[in-house]
Amino acid sequence: MRYAVLGTGIVGRTLAAALASLGHEVVIGTRDPEATLARADYAEWRAARPQVRLVALREAADAGETLVNATGGRVSVAALTEAGAAQLTGKVLIDVANPLDFSQGFPPSLDPVNGDSLGELIQRTFPGLRVVKTLNTMNCRIMVDPGRVPGHHHVFLSGEDADAKNSVRVLLHSFGWPQESILDLGGIETARGAEMLLPMWLRLMGALGHTDFNFHIQGT
Amino acid sequence: MRYAVLGTGIVGRTLAAALASLGHEVVIGTRDPEATLARADYAEWRAARPQVRLVALREAADAGETLVNATGGRVSVAALTEAGAAQLTGKVLIDVANPLDFSQGFPPSLDPVNGDSLGELIQRTFPGLRVVKTLNTMNCRIMVDPGRVPGHHHVFLSGEDADAKNSVRVLLHSFGWPQESILDLGGIETARGAEMLLPMWLRLMGALGHTDFNFHIQGT
Repeated sequence: MRYAVLGTGIVGRTLAAALASLGHEVVIGTRDPEATLARADYAEWRAARPQVRLVALREAADAGETLVNATGGRVSVAALTEAGAAQLTGKVLIDVANPLDFSQGFPPSLDPVNGDSLGELIQRTFPGLRVVKTLNTMNCRIMVDPGRVPGHHHVFLSGEDADAKNSVRVLLHSFGWPQESILDLGGIETARGAEMLLPMWLRLMGALGHTDFNFHIQGT
Repeated sequence: MRYAVLGTGIVGRTLAAALASLGHEVVIGTRDPEATLARADYAEWRAARPQVRLVALREAADAGETLVNATGGRVSVAALTEAGAAQLTGKVLIDVANPLDFSQGFPPSLDPVNGDSLGELIQRTFPGLRVVKTLNTMNCRIMVDPGRVPGHHHVFLSGEDADAKNSVRVLLHSFGWPQESILDLGGIETARGAEMLLPMWLRLMGALGHTDFNFHIQGT
């Protein structure tokens, strides 16, 4: 499969590395490849993975059969707009982003919240995309290596397209998620619930002093 | 211990019944006892528990050494104001309410959300109260009988007063919560995280088709 990961932060790089190591063809999309390459964190990461090309957002969206939104949640719609609505149409978008608003400091709040979610906003803005919200409720190292956290724990799915969700299930299996750990919440509206776990996640990180934890729903 | 449970809905009645069955002296506080007694659901419940007196909010706050806020989250501050700031001073308030706003239909949204929480709002409005937010993240039958959900799962604590939190731990033990299932998130600000689990709880209820589930944090 050809994946295009949009976003060059730690989440995007972690997902791109995992996809590449599974044998997929991976490109990473960014607004300004030159500026990204000038960043020490990205240059170091890239030196170890020369096969993962860094390209502009539109070229990435063109290249990928499946897209991963790992941009910052507050700029996701702008990044997808730059990628091009025509390029997006018909493709599956795995949306792992959270609409965290750091403008008032730490911990961030959520925007949108309550009557909306980033997952819905993206689906509404790009009706031709097949958005699946998933993996946004945990540290990125756990996304691609669930065994970091011992015992059973969950990854959630929200989206309107059953085939798209099934293709994401296959990917999650390949990351090491067993069938019983994948909990389908329903349509994209349920992304509100998954995104609103983030304020709790942030406070659990504070209370526990680490990020190697995950939500498990007991009683499923 | 003498408990005053504020609120006559299913949550308040479930907690009051559990407290009474543990041998505590329990009163239930309501705005208008006559109106509450005229309700079939309350009258039926009361017939089986004549020892649990129903009184006005101020009399309840006077009688209780420890108070339980089981009122609707949108009216909690009004109910506590009616109970009387002087009556509340120095007492522990176990806040199990959620600020669910049903004005736009189901599922409800949260108000306040993001930069505030009901737990903080109550603590700010009544600085003499020792507020402990807990038990708000599950169905009320699980609050008083955690064994309804098999396996390990969590109940969270948020509050500023360590002694108050310790007294709530003792109560939770008596309901059947083992020590390792009680997760102290920190100060009352962390109630934002616990209250923002509710949108996910509502969507899990929809996906699972029942309410006998609870959050477990794997990796603590």
